[in-house]
Amino acid sequence: MSTITPPVNPESNPRVKAVFDDIREVRGNDFINNVWRHLAFDPQLLEEVWTDVRDVMARPTLIDFKTKEMIYAAVSIANSCNYCVHSHTAAARARGMTDAEHAELLRIVSTAARTNHLLNAIKPPIDDAFDMSGG
Amino acid sequence: MSTITPPVNPESNPRVKAVFDDIREVRGNDFINNVWRHLAFDPQLLEEVWTDVRDVMARPTLIDFKTKEMIYAAVSIANSCNYCVHSHTAAARARGMTDAEHAELLRIVSTAARTNHLLNAIKPPIDDAFDMSGG
Amino acid sequence: MSTITPPVNPESNPRVKAVFDDIREVRGNDFINNVWRHLAFDPQLLEEVWTDVRDVMARPTLIDFKTKEMIYAAVSIANSCNYCVHSHTAAARARGMTDAEHAELLRIVSTAARTNHLLNAIKPPIDDAFDMSGG
Amino acid sequence: MSTITPPVNPESNPRVKAVFDDIREVRGNDFINNVWRHLAFDPQLLEEVWTDVRDVMARPTLIDFKTKEMIYAAVSIANSCNYCVHSHTAAARARGMTDAEHAELLRIVSTAARTNHLLNAIKPPIDDAFDMSGG
Amino acid sequence: MSTITPPVNPESNPRVKAVFDDIREVRGNDFINNVWRHLAFDPQLLEEVWTDVRDVMARPTLIDFKTKEMIYAAVSIANSCNYCVHSHTAAARARGMTDAEHAELLRIVSTAARTNHLLNAIKPPIDDAFDMSGG
Amino acid sequence: MSTITPPVNPESNPRVKAVFDDIREVRGNDFINNVWRHLAFDPQLLEEVWTDVRDVMARPTLIDFKTKEMIYAAVSIANSCNYCVHSHTAAARARGMTDAEHAELLRIVSTAARTNHLLNAIKPPIDDAFDMSGG
Repeated sequence: MSTITPPVNPESNPRVKAVFDDIREVRGNDFINNVWRHLAFDPQLLEEVWTDVRDVMARPTLIDFKTKEMIYAAVSIANSCNYCVHSHTAAARARGMTDAEHAELLRIVSTAARTNHLLNAIKPPIDDAFDMSGG
Repeated sequence: MSTITPPVNPESNPRVKAVFDDIREVRGNDFINNVWRHLAFDPQLLEEVWTDVRDVMARPTLIDFKTKEMIYAAVSIANSCNYCVHSHTAAARARGMTDAEHAELLRIVSTAARTNHLLNAIKPPIDDAFDMSGG
Repeated sequence: MSTITPPVNPESNPRVKAVFDDIREVRGNDFINNVWRHLAFDPQLLEEVWTDVRDVMARPTLIDFKTKEMIYAAVSIANSCNYCVHSHTAAARARGMTDAEHAELLRIVSTAARTNHLLNAIKPPIDDAFDMSGG
Repeated sequence: MSTITPPVNPESNPRVKAVFDDIREVRGNDFINNVWRHLAFDPQLLEEVWTDVRDVMARPTLIDFKTKEMIYAAVSIANSCNYCVHSHTAAARARGMTDAEHAELLRIVSTAARTNHLLNAIKPPIDDAFDMSGG
Repeated sequence: MSTITPPVNPESNPRVKAVFDDIREVRGNDFINNVWRHLAFDPQLLEEVWTDVRDVMARPTLIDFKTKEMIYAAVSIANSCNYCVHSHTAAARARGMTDAEHAELLRIVSTAARTNHLLNAIKPPIDDAFDMSGG
Repeated sequence: MSTITPPVNPESNPRVKAVFDDIREVRGNDFINNVWRHLAFDPQLLEEVWTDVRDVMARPTLIDFKTKEMIYAAVSIANSCNYCVHSHTAAARARGMTDAEHAELLRIVSTAARTNHLLNAIKPPIDDAFDMSGG
């Protein structure tokens, strides 16, 4: 169940077709997953979101592709985004994440959550050693 | 301002001293930051949390130390834990994270947050291709 | 799947019936959606929640009905409440929100989420110009 | 630094004075903490929030006062509300929470957060045994 | 739909079997719910999570079992963990939580959420009376 | 205390100067608040974030400026972003939000949070009437 009605023939809109063509080219396959089919209800929003995600995640940058997807998945878990957890866990696997690395990612994320709550409860003063503001 | 009164002489308690000694040995320096000084109010909790964090973050595992700290910082940002953001950003720097990598981490985390909210708003059906449950 | 068993004949309880009658009168139709049918398991809780939501959202106030539902939906998105996102997006549409306004709402919410995470990561000092505490 | 300017002489407004008098009477002392002094900028909001909090937290109900404050603090920790964590931890202490109970509360909250993130990452199907919807 | 493939015969792994045996013994019945069946994909993670949850939740401690499950459920609600809300609401019921106590738990959690958001919006200064850091 | 060292002379970098000039022009005054001074540590990130925020928030669009800032503040409150709550509450005031409208915004946000938690606890089935996926 969705709050948006995805267009029936999204590629009849040339702006949508251009984005979908770019998705297929960047990924090297024909799979257009549901997030893009739904965002097609507003071509401008589709363009903005795809451009942003593509430039960060699908272009070579300093951090390797697998690690980027694992960080993305970690944030999606913390934000409780069901769709994003599924899509970026799958993307991390497609970029080479093994079962053992997945287990380790879960270990880091869940331990972080544990201490996040602990320190949001205790509120210790932040050590001066961590301050970067003075340069 | 904290919700806990840290003990004035925490190492007078032998269980606390054992944990602090282990922290110093694992890190190779004498810095005991405030989270451990506050958790010392309950030696059992201190032991449990330190053991958990140490085994995941300070022992060699599949994922390298710098990446682990960046994932930990990402989760801490999403959970809005002020202390944790400061301590794990500092830890990632100590493990070699450069300014450029920090900027890229922020780019991934903030783009993830953007699409997390977008998809929690739209609720597209999750593509069958992402399903791992059937093996 | 729910954690509550909704009563089979909720309006056999006069307190529940009074609330359901008020819902029908305020809305001008007969639709009692599932949130109220489930809250009927505890008539006092039903009364408190309906009274609160009705006074803020269904009575004329300073902010127009459509805008109120859009703000409500924005908070529900950020809090990852699946039911609330669906019901208040539908309510915003019923109050006149167009597809283009929905797209703009999503743009604001997702851009806010992006900068929320960015600034929870960077923690810049808050500018004195924003301080209202001194009057 | 606050986003609201608290009124200088809040009790010159009779609606505010009535709420402050009720706070003093219910608590049996003269301490009006900052949340109420700030909410006084809008007497209606002050009345609504105080009435709600008082009826749930300061009146005898099924759950004892100490436990109620511990649950309230737990939610405030998870929602990262700095003020609320401080005020409701203090309230739990005032209702009798010992250091050992505080440590146990932190243990429950942080373990819950750990598994919350783990299961938001794994998304196992919910067991039929947990379903209450059928009665 | 899950991001993990649960093993088909989990108890063929002796480490998994040992955990499942412990779960059955501690609970006094044969029900192994889905969280453990999925965590079995990584025996070490399964052991760590079960040990942690068991020691906090299934061993006698200062706080009674029913209250512990209610606090756990409260955190799970705030963290929007669907599986956890179902499993720990069911656990609280199994420990004796009545419908009336469930309604009161919901009243506390939702009132806390209301004031959490209100004070994260207003940001009043934290009263000195709440400071525990000085001892 | 910040995790980033803001550049001492940010406008010595021409990309930063171009953004700061655009901020001054769009706003019609000379105030560059701390978020931009800190983001200047990475000119590309600064450009991306400013462009995104400017196009959504500082250009005329379907939704009026005051309402956009109120929605932005609402999301920032729910995400517990201290800096963002202050800056966007101030921006909403600069766009004309009165004290009474601020109080109403707080009423909507906090009532939404209350029901968000309530329904994340109860998990009622989503009514078919809310489904937009079929068109």
